Amino acid sequence: MEQDIQFRMATEQDLDQIVKMLADDVLGRKREKYEHPLPDSYLKAFQAIESDPNNELVVACQGEEIIGVQQITFTPYITHQGGWRATIEGVRTTSSSRSKGVGTKLIKWGIQRAKERGCHLIQLTTDKERPDALRFYEKLGFKATHEGLKLKL
Amino acid sequence: MEQDIQFRMATEQDLDQIVKMLADDVLGRKREKYEHPLPDSYLKAFQAIESDPNNELVVACQGEEIIGVQQITFTPYITHQGGWRATIEGVRTTSSSRSKGVGTKLIKWGIQRAKERGCHLIQLTTDKERPDALRFYEKLGFKATHEGLKLKL
Repeated sequence: MEQDIQFRMATEQDLDQIVKMLADDVLGRKREKYEHPLPDSYLKAFQAIESDPNNELVVACQGEEIIGVQQITFTPYITHQGGWRATIEGVRTTSSSRSKGVGTKLIKWGIQRAKERGCHLIQLTTDKERPDALRFYEKLGFKATHEGLKLKL
Repeated sequence: MEQDIQFRMATEQDLDQIVKMLADDVLGRKREKYEHPLPDSYLKAFQAIESDPNNELVVACQGEEIIGVQQITFTPYITHQGGWRATIEGVRTTSSSRSKGVGTKLIKWGIQRAKERGCHLIQLTTDKERPDALRFYEKLGFKATHEGLKLKL
């Protein structure tokens, strides 16, 4: 029998598996650097996330193995009468766990977490080069009402 | 001669003018509540932003008058080798100052600030119901490479 999927906050010990997962992706392999030791910039980012009460790095695990990751940022805004929003970013699942519903469970966990934190909205952007991802999020109830614009600095 | 435009962090005393500006907008009037006293939720959000080193509420002023606003959120991510991003949200200018280039100066100020904070990317989403806004951001160099998805909670 397969083990249940557990969700929890990532620890520094998970970072290697997280970066491996991010690098094992059609877009990720162009921009990540999975090597040993890991570039120090990953550890610094992890520590910045961990020490920020408005950022949570969440992993999906099956036993010792990490099979999914997402980052949730909680932001207070003046707009919408001072409403808080949750932003999901950096969602990945291991290639071996795809089509097993891990991604769906991960996002549903994020939606629940955003409600617990009192957010009125949960948002994300998805690369137009990932049409499957768009359909995936639309099935979960997200509406593509906005254009997502980026400017490299 | 017209006074120069100054940019600075918003103070609690600016909140009334900021909310007035947010409410004076085709989408904003449906969702904001500009009344006296202001709903307490605005003040709470302002205080949460002000006390968060990764959130900045920036105003454009001409003398005593506030003519523009934007919020910038700085977020550390594991993706892109642990890179920081800046997210711009809640951009508005007063209806009387539009077409005077205030919006352009405001966003350029935000881009400069994101560079100072060491961000590799600056991003935002814009409602598909605002085609003019899309063109405005594209002229500033932003690329609409992503879909912006939202889910109301």
